[in-house]
Amino acid sequence: MFKLVDHIGVATRSIDASVDTLRKLGPVELGELETIERYNLKARMVRTGDVPIELIEPLSEESNIHAFIEKRGEGLHHIAYRVDDIEQALARCREQGLRLIDEKPRPGYAEALVAFVHPKSVLGVLTELVQREPGKDQAPYAPDHH
Amino acid sequence: MFKLVDHIGVATRSIDASVDTLRKLGPVELGELETIERYNLKARMVRTGDVPIELIEPLSEESNIHAFIEKRGEGLHHIAYRVDDIEQALARCREQGLRLIDEKPRPGYAEALVAFVHPKSVLGVLTELVQREPGKDQAPYAPDHH
Repeated sequence: MFKLVDHIGVATRSIDASVDTLRKLGPVELGELETIERYNLKARMVRTGDVPIELIEPLSEESNIHAFIEKRGEGLHHIAYRVDDIEQALARCREQGLRLIDEKPRPGYAEALVAFVHPKSVLGVLTELVQREPGKDQAPYAPDHH
Repeated sequence: MFKLVDHIGVATRSIDASVDTLRKLGPVELGELETIERYNLKARMVRTGDVPIELIEPLSEESNIHAFIEKRGEGLHHIAYRVDDIEQALARCREQGLRLIDEKPRPGYAEALVAFVHPKSVLGVLTELVQREPGKDQAPYAPDHH
């Protein structure tokens, strides 16, 4: 069911500063900067290796991401797995007794459908399920004109 | 330089319990259980998606992994990137002013050469560089006879 790692989520106080840091490691590819009001955050995909990093920055102090950073510092936040059928994946998680944060899929970054499973159920790791439209294997990237 | 994500490291109190949890998500493939005395831990690669998870468990209360779990709980610990030439990668990191935990490569899981870069330099993410022998693209896996 969990075939591909879609991305690794990293919480940051500043997406721009984080992109600058990643440039030190080598060339990067950048997705669109998106504001996701529902989650009270800004997000941007950045590719350094073959697995994209989703940089997430709180929009305000009321954001869960702000609380996360205050408590644990900037850094690793979640792992997202690509699934073909997110309803089916959620049903399996429910069947296995996993605690769901989202009972239903919600719209996420780059128009994907996403749902989160509680870290208490998965090794302490906040786990995201991501269903992309057929043919949209990844969020679109632009070259870095830095 | 950072072309492939080699694995995602997850700190756990019990590798066995974590493997049982991952089985709930679907079929798993298991690497060897290794004891890495140098780091005072046990490690085992587990594949659920295409990116392996390295489960790491403290060998004793003196282990850094024990301290990590006490402070932050079980969960995401590091990201490891595959590099072709770890000496060259370390040189680039040094050149870019990144803080290195290992000035020289050390032997890691499945006979890879590894070195860690300090999370302070890379988005708060403990970052591992992994050089594998040519032809050894991954740690070897056995089917799960559970």
